[in-house]
Amino acid sequence: MQNKLESLKNILLMGAGPSSVAPSTYYAMSRSTIGHLDPSFISLMDEIKEDLRYLMGTKNEVTVPLSGTGSAGMEASFVNMVVPGMKVLVLENGVFGNRMADVAERLGAVVNKVEWQWGTPVCVEDVKALLQKDKYDIVSVVHAETSTGVRNPVKEIGELVAETGAYYIVDTVTSLGGIPVEVDNWKADVCYSGSQKCLSCPPGLSPITFSNRAMEHILSREKKVPNWYLDMTLLTKYWGGSKRTYHHTAPINMLYALYQAIFNIMDEGVDNVYARHVAAHNTLVTELESFGMEFLVDKEYRLPELNAVIVPSDIDEAALRNILLNKYNIEVSSGLGPLSGKIIRIGLMGYNATPEKAKYVADTIKECMDEVKK
Amino acid sequence: MQNKLESLKNILLMGAGPSSVAPSTYYAMSRSTIGHLDPSFISLMDEIKEDLRYLMGTKNEVTVPLSGTGSAGMEASFVNMVVPGMKVLVLENGVFGNRMADVAERLGAVVNKVEWQWGTPVCVEDVKALLQKDKYDIVSVVHAETSTGVRNPVKEIGELVAETGAYYIVDTVTSLGGIPVEVDNWKADVCYSGSQKCLSCPPGLSPITFSNRAMEHILSREKKVPNWYLDMTLLTKYWGGSKRTYHHTAPINMLYALYQAIFNIMDEGVDNVYARHVAAHNTLVTELESFGMEFLVDKEYRLPELNAVIVPSDIDEAALRNILLNKYNIEVSSGLGPLSGKIIRIGLMGYNATPEKAKYVADTIKECMDEVKK
Repeated sequence: MQNKLESLKNILLMGAGPSSVAPSTYYAMSRSTIGHLDPSFISLMDEIKEDLRYLMGTKNEVTVPLSGTGSAGMEASFVNMVVPGMKVLVLENGVFGNRMADVAERLGAVVNKVEWQWGTPVCVEDVKALLQKDKYDIVSVVHAETSTGVRNPVKEIGELVAETGAYYIVDTVTSLGGIPVEVDNWKADVCYSGSQKCLSCPPGLSPITFSNRAMEHILSREKKVPNWYLDMTLLTKYWGGSKRTYHHTAPINMLYALYQAIFNIMDEGVDNVYARHVAAHNTLVTELESFGMEFLVDKEYRLPELNAVIVPSDIDEAALRNILLNKYNIEVSSGLGPLSGKIIRIGLMGYNATPEKAKYVADTIKECMDEVKK
Repeated sequence: MQNKLESLKNILLMGAGPSSVAPSTYYAMSRSTIGHLDPSFISLMDEIKEDLRYLMGTKNEVTVPLSGTGSAGMEASFVNMVVPGMKVLVLENGVFGNRMADVAERLGAVVNKVEWQWGTPVCVEDVKALLQKDKYDIVSVVHAETSTGVRNPVKEIGELVAETGAYYIVDTVTSLGGIPVEVDNWKADVCYSGSQKCLSCPPGLSPITFSNRAMEHILSREKKVPNWYLDMTLLTKYWGGSKRTYHHTAPINMLYALYQAIFNIMDEGVDNVYARHVAAHNTLVTELESFGMEFLVDKEYRLPELNAVIVPSDIDEAALRNILLNKYNIEVSSGLGPLSGKIIRIGLMGYNATPEKAKYVADTIKECMDEVKK
């Protein structure tokens, strides 16, 4: 029998995620599985909760990694919070805002999705007007829009939402571990992320946090949450320390990896980690601009960890990505939706967010340019 | 900083799951992460689908590993199939049948849960009478009830269900890879499993399959499936080979592990693997009976991979498990619900299903007996 894993290449992951993983995290993940009811595993769960609170900037008791990917985090946010008939305002400027609207509508929410041009941030003044015009139960937004590389002004929006009393859901899939996430400071009620971006852990887990106010709402729902797997009232008991109640079997080895990935960040110091992302980004900008490449997003709203780079009209974008992957073993990502064919997305996330790797990618792209002229 | 992973012990997992994992599978899991849109990853996905079809005994096109644990498989089965108001008959003789009823009710199903005594199988004659008395849209049952060690007669039940035209959902979390699973032969419409039992892969994935008839039903639903993350119409496109559409980011490294775990089973030969489970079970029975231990389940319905062993009334069951874990680094599981304190559950799953390990566990239990007398 032929084992296909043996022919897998070692790829430098400089795309929209997953990002490359540190050797220490691979090593952690391959430690011997222990029982999910083993006291030493419970002690590990407690520390993961504590570390996630620190990293997410929150005192929320209910802060856990869900046993699913970042998309499961989005699902969990809405399925726990939405009661059919609730009015939800989705602030959309990319793929993931769009997805939020789909998720919420399936759950019986009355969704008003308002769009801003992809590549630009959600406009705070517009949000103010929207919230003055109509009353909403929930407002949701993406902090770091993976499809465009835009950082949305989530704190300013949070101030406005808090005044209305609506619940505030923030997606931090591509921000957590790369730029500061400050759940309490933003007045967010629900915030979720993914393991495979700036945390540099393989994909499969979704850190999530719920404010006390959000949990009170969930606990006072008339009917049970229509999703047993992601019901936070059950998951809270499962992650509840010594008094825990069996729910599902946690993905033990993935949680080893998450523990180690967060350990690495804390060990380096979060501020150093954020500074390293900025330094890598600055290098990428300098190097790419040196041969005429331009960025989609205005400087003020650019994510250091996700760079939307405009592909010159005489360059074959797909050919560029293919040559990077097949000849140089570097993955960068394509544009999505209206940006398909127009941009490439270069990730500088977690383990790969260094000026050296940023320069290497830029240099390699420069080297390829002649080959991929239309 | 202290790294808690360093103090984790190597535990022989002989409980209800997770089971111990082969070194080759740990190694596979720690291979470098590649992009989830990388062509070589897509080729791996295709082979996983093909292998799962073989292992599950089905020609179903829609056969994939879900990005969640076995419980996500249960959720996916019901959320895709249940349209509010549907009548669901849940055949229950353990914890997981109970859970099915909870999952289905949350989704708006009208559930009739019929119970048989824990430790005994679902009675086919009773099911016949139930199906003659009332009309159901869905009938569900657990093949291998992890909480009791009972194998339910899923083929015989499947024949009866097929005559009524109802959809048939079968849980094979604890059977897949340990005893034959024959989805097509059972006339099952939906069948799900988990990675962490007899497949000897770490927890985190749920193989699932849907018949063409089930998919037609899902595709003809008036409203979208009320769960974006587990919507099979979207997941089918994501797992759809060359024409695939982005959905979520698959848990790449967990899928490496699943690929390797199934590879190991196919490499040994599935029939050899099943025979090894039986041989391990026979050894356990002989050894435990040699010092007077008895089994909860009648011989005909016993699972080789999950053994419910009655704890004599003069033995402190919790003390027995604790001493096994803390002194001998062996995990066995407690009884659940009405069987709590009355049985221990010994798993002989996958990598650990050998006569040698069965004898080792029995010998160790024998050695502990004096110490844990009440």
